[in-house]
Amino acid sequence: MKFLGHVTVTLKRGVFDPQGVTVKNALHNLSFSETEAVRTGKYFEVVMESANPAEAEKRLNEMCDRLLVNPVIECYRCHVEPAEEMESAT
Amino acid sequence: MKFLGHVTVTLKRGVFDPQGVTVKNALHNLSFSETEAVRTGKYFEVVMESANPAEAEKRLNEMCDRLLVNPVIECYRCHVEPAEEMESAT
Repeated sequence: MKFLGHVTVTLKRGVFDPQGVTVKNALHNLSFSETEAVRTGKYFEVVMESANPAEAEKRLNEMCDRLLVNPVIECYRCHVEPAEEMESAT
Repeated sequence: MKFLGHVTVTLKRGVFDPQGVTVKNALHNLSFSETEAVRTGKYFEVVMESANPAEAEKRLNEMCDRLLVNPVIECYRCHVEPAEEMESAT
């Protein structure tokens, strides 16, 4: 069965995010003065074959731990959903 | 009132994603052979001051349209939530 995994990777609290600061300053320059802080991160969609949702989520967590996430400075959250209609996303 | 906006930016269907292909190949090399496709994207957290959730979401959409998203090749989804406890995320 095909699953679509969503992974959102963010910098841990306290890790400096110069890209976020730059975006915040740019938003201020565009008159979005209500913006107080911006943090940037990465996002992955993974289409995978798996027997069931629990197995897919387990494997997705392994992918995060082994490749997608740098555990020193990043944290992540992920979830999976059935993905029959996502096949063409390649 | 303080709100936390989440913005996920992805490439539109059909736009080639070499980074995603590279990640997929790397996952295969790490024995995650069930991976069929990977698409990469960006993620932003925006802490903002706003009168109410509807106003915050409207402003966040404007930020996406004017700075965060390239409408030629990218699409996005966003939502806001109350964010009292997120002040220290800077």
